[in-house]
Amino acid sequence: MLGAHYRPGMSSTPAEPQSRPARDRRSPYNLDELLEVVAHEFLERGYDATSMEDLSRATGRTKSSIYHHVSGKEELLRLAVARALDALFAVLDEEQDRQGPAVERLERVVRGSARVLVAELPYVTLLLRVRGNTEGEREALSRRREFDKRLSALVGDAIREGDVRADLDPRLVTRLLFGMVNSLVEWFRPGGAHDRQEVEDALVALAFDGLRPR
Amino acid sequence: MLGAHYRPGMSSTPAEPQSRPARDRRSPYNLDELLEVVAHEFLERGYDATSMEDLSRATGRTKSSIYHHVSGKEELLRLAVARALDALFAVLDEEQDRQGPAVERLERVVRGSARVLVAELPYVTLLLRVRGNTEGEREALSRRREFDKRLSALVGDAIREGDVRADLDPRLVTRLLFGMVNSLVEWFRPGGAHDRQEVEDALVALAFDGLRPR
Repeated sequence: MLGAHYRPGMSSTPAEPQSRPARDRRSPYNLDELLEVVAHEFLERGYDATSMEDLSRATGRTKSSIYHHVSGKEELLRLAVARALDALFAVLDEEQDRQGPAVERLERVVRGSARVLVAELPYVTLLLRVRGNTEGEREALSRRREFDKRLSALVGDAIREGDVRADLDPRLVTRLLFGMVNSLVEWFRPGGAHDRQEVEDALVALAFDGLRPR
Repeated sequence: MLGAHYRPGMSSTPAEPQSRPARDRRSPYNLDELLEVVAHEFLERGYDATSMEDLSRATGRTKSSIYHHVSGKEELLRLAVARALDALFAVLDEEQDRQGPAVERLERVVRGSARVLVAELPYVTLLLRVRGNTEGEREALSRRREFDKRLSALVGDAIREGDVRADLDPRLVTRLLFGMVNSLVEWFRPGGAHDRQEVEDALVALAFDGLRPR
C-alpha cells in the first residue's frame, strides 16, 4: 500500500538514539529529512540511475538503517510522490466542501496548487517526471488522472454557472491551465527574480483574464 | 560547432549503397530517420543511461556506421535539440521582419511554437529536459535563454502598444505563457482526444482572453 511505512510522527518524535543500528552514529532518523535528500538525488541522477549505495552516501546513512524504514528505493519514490499528491488532493478536498461559485473555488485551487508546487518543489517535480515504469509510478499516475478528472469537473461546473467561457472543452482547459501551473517546477526558485505571491497573482490574472486589457 | 556534421542533403540524397561500411547491409543512411530513433531512445532510457550499444541495437546500425556520421552520442543529442531550436527560432525570425502590432506577432509566435512542438515532439521534449550537464546541453540552454529574451521583448512591445495589460512583468508573462505552450509535450499525442487545430485555438483563446467570458 502506498505510504504504508510512512510514519508521520517520526519527524517530530525521532526514535531514541539507542534504538538505531550500531553502525549508524549520526543523529536520530527523520524521514522527512531523508526524503528531501533522496528526492534531490533522484532528480539529479534520474531515478533509474540512483542506487541504494548512492542514497546511503548522499544521506550519510548506512543502507541497513535506510532499510530499517523502507523496503527500498521504489518505496522512497512512492513516499516522495505521495507527499506531493497528498498536498495537492488536500487543496481539492478543502474546496469540495465549500459553498459559493465554482469559478471562485477554481481560482482557489489554482492558487493552492501553485502554493503546493512551491512548498513541495522537489516532490512535485518528481511526480511530474513519473512515467509509469513501476507499480508505484502507475499508482501515482492513476492518482494524477483522478486529480485531473476532479479539476475538469470543477471547470465544467464553472462553465454551467456561466462564469467560464463555454466555447472551450473542460478537459483541454484543465490540461492547458495546469500545464501553466506545473511549469513552475521548471523555472520557479525560492529567492529568484519573482516571489511566490507575484507568481501566484500573475498566474491567476493570466488564467482568468488573459493577456489583453479588459 | 553545433550541427557541424549535420548534412541537410543527406535525407533526400542518401549515400550510394557501395559507399557504406561492409558490415552494414541495410538501406542507405538517412540522418533524419536515425535521429528519430535516437531521440526516442534518449527519451525512453534517459540520455545518461543510453549507450552507443543501445543506439546501435535500436537503429539496426553498426556502431562504426553511426560513428561514420557523428562523433558520438553527445553529438546526436546536439543534433536532436538543435533541430527543435532551429524550428523555434525560425518562427521568431519570420515574425521579426514583419510589420503590424506586436500583439499579432505574439499570437502568431504562440501558434507557430505550438505547431513546432507538435511537429518536432520528441526533439522539443528532449530540449525541455536538457539540464546543462555537457557542453552541448549548455549551448542549448543558452539558445533557450536567447529565445526567452526575444519573446519577453515582444511581450514588452505589445505592452507599450497598449494591447497587452501593463500590470504584469513581461518576463514572468513569457514564462507562464510558454509554460502553457510547452506543457503540450507532456500530454499532446497525435491522434489523441484533441486535434492540433483545437489545441492551438484553445491555447490562444486562453492566453489572450482568459477563462472568463468577455
